[in-house]
Amino acid sequence: MKKIAVILSGCGYLDGSEIHEATLSLYFIEKYGMEYDVYAPDIDQYHVINHLTREVENGKRNVLVESARIARGKIKNLDLLNAENYDALFLPGGNGAAKNLSDYAFKGAEVKVLKKAESVIKEFSDEGKYICAICIAPVIVAKSLGNKKVQVTIGDDKETAADIESFGARHINKAVTEFNFDEANKVLTTPAYMYNAKITEAAEGIEKLVKKLSEII
Amino acid sequence: MKKIAVILSGCGYLDGSEIHEATLSLYFIEKYGMEYDVYAPDIDQYHVINHLTREVENGKRNVLVESARIARGKIKNLDLLNAENYDALFLPGGNGAAKNLSDYAFKGAEVKVLKKAESVIKEFSDEGKYICAICIAPVIVAKSLGNKKVQVTIGDDKETAADIESFGARHINKAVTEFNFDEANKVLTTPAYMYNAKITEAAEGIEKLVKKLSEII
Repeated sequence: MKKIAVILSGCGYLDGSEIHEATLSLYFIEKYGMEYDVYAPDIDQYHVINHLTREVENGKRNVLVESARIARGKIKNLDLLNAENYDALFLPGGNGAAKNLSDYAFKGAEVKVLKKAESVIKEFSDEGKYICAICIAPVIVAKSLGNKKVQVTIGDDKETAADIESFGARHINKAVTEFNFDEANKVLTTPAYMYNAKITEAAEGIEKLVKKLSEII
Repeated sequence: MKKIAVILSGCGYLDGSEIHEATLSLYFIEKYGMEYDVYAPDIDQYHVINHLTREVENGKRNVLVESARIARGKIKNLDLLNAENYDALFLPGGNGAAKNLSDYAFKGAEVKVLKKAESVIKEFSDEGKYICAICIAPVIVAKSLGNKKVQVTIGDDKETAADIESFGARHINKAVTEFNFDEANKVLTTPAYMYNAKITEAAEGIEKLVKKLSEII
């Protein structure tokens, strides 16, 4: 059975992993006959956002500990992720990808990707393994693999697309129910909640991406 | 389009709503042609549990604010829920149902259900509307409607089943991929993560339950 390494970045779309994207990714990975392990970095979240008021709250939360809520405790420190043990890498979205796995939410085109996340992305790519990224997560794949001219989608947001192209990658506009497949670089991406989408729309794009992965992996 | 009121109880299976059950419920409700609004009580969680270590943590979290992570901010105070505006009530599981919506986790058969949750359950039942409950949540439906001799499943846990029968309700053993339909009382229940289940197994039971609801509602 093909094994997928999923990287989470917290628990909640404003300061961590987008919960629907993460849950539906795990569901479809298993539904299409693959299995997964979940990882997250053992670092503090950049901040905590109240998801009712959308305001920053006092207090610290740890990315690994909060991601464990989505993974039901079955999660490992990202430092332990070894590409050799997996057939593909999977990055759900949410602002955690832009605030915890990188500083894209604050630095834009000057983004730096978390060192271990970047090295893992390069490792999967160098070993010719598939990389899947949802929502805003394709930004950190594009940044990490910029010199390989990867082709990704984050939907149709012009500013984010311009940032992606500034890394040397190429951006392709896609609808929420679609995904982009860069065959040369083995990178699959879908916009999900980059759009103000319904859960079934986000799920449709994610399901199509995962189904495709299951056919080619 | 039929409208479902979903009640959440936090964000994480040890101290709030079970995230997979909640997300998959929203997904299947929409997939089978219904729409939903999400509610949660504006109260402190009973406690906060670290989902990595399973130990109680310092700090307070609010059930409505944490549930907003799953609902992506589109959530209302449970006090505002009026059964007249909906065709069915839907209660995902997780320990939040047994710790925040009730004190079942601590009091067992002596459980008290949160006043507003109990009145809402009675209201939907009195109006002849469907009530769906997942995982441990059937306990609070059974307690709230005990005198109606409702028939529910929480899987096959004998102690919980005995508590349910002590309320005057009837417990039916079901597998994780099955659901129970009490036609007389219009109550649908499925065990989900009452079993140590895979996400696709929990999803199968929830999907069958929601599909049935969509056919009869």
